Amino acid sequence: MIGRLNHVAIAVKDLSAASASYRDGLGAKVSAPVDLPEHGVRIAFVELANTKIELLQPLGEHSPIGRFLVKNPDGAIHHLCYEVEDLLAARDRLIHSGARILGDGAPHIGAHGKPVLFLDPKSFAGTLIELEQA
Amino acid sequence: MIGRLNHVAIAVKDLSAASASYRDGLGAKVSAPVDLPEHGVRIAFVELANTKIELLQPLGEHSPIGRFLVKNPDGAIHHLCYEVEDLLAARDRLIHSGARILGDGAPHIGAHGKPVLFLDPKSFAGTLIELEQA
Repeated sequence: MIGRLNHVAIAVKDLSAASASYRDGLGAKVSAPVDLPEHGVRIAFVELANTKIELLQPLGEHSPIGRFLVKNPDGAIHHLCYEVEDLLAARDRLIHSGARILGDGAPHIGAHGKPVLFLDPKSFAGTLIELEQA
Repeated sequence: MIGRLNHVAIAVKDLSAASASYRDGLGAKVSAPVDLPEHGVRIAFVELANTKIELLQPLGEHSPIGRFLVKNPDGAIHHLCYEVEDLLAARDRLIHSGARILGDGAPHIGAHGKPVLFLDPKSFAGTLIELEQA
């Protein structure tokens, strides 16, 4: 059912410093930063051959990753995003298997303009999972 | 310089339960578990279209992920593994950029039989990075 790993999201305190460490230390291609005020983040992508790393810095006072960075002041991996062909069918299968969906179970539009759902980390060995309609 | 994301490694308390959640909940193909006593882990792979997820359960009393799971009892993402064409050239570039390599800087043979190095999470926004010779 799940398809590609769309991205690994890493919450960082300082997007410029994190971008520089990937660019200068690892020789990776890193996109220019983009502000997404409606999502409370400033993002940049590390473009790998087979997937991407999304670097996320909090933007504004009510950023969804603000508290996460208080708990993880050096930064940390925040979530994994998997693509699915049919988000509603995926949701129903997950619920049937006993997994818990965060929120009210209705997809919303994610930071990349596509419908997404987030799954309870307790259902997946402590990992926050985003499912994105491919 | 870095190439593909080879895998995302997730430390789990219960490999059977984690495998089942990926297989039953997400419909993913999950390999049979394999014990690697010399690395102190039992592993299974979630095979995605573009990369893989390595589920790691501690094996034995001196597992390198035992303490990590004490700190993260639900499980958590442990590291990201990137492929590089030339591990020694990658190491030298990293050192030149100011990043720190864990251990003595000499590659050792990783769980997949290839030379690897681990990078200090403090150099990469709190993320433990494994570099593997492609």
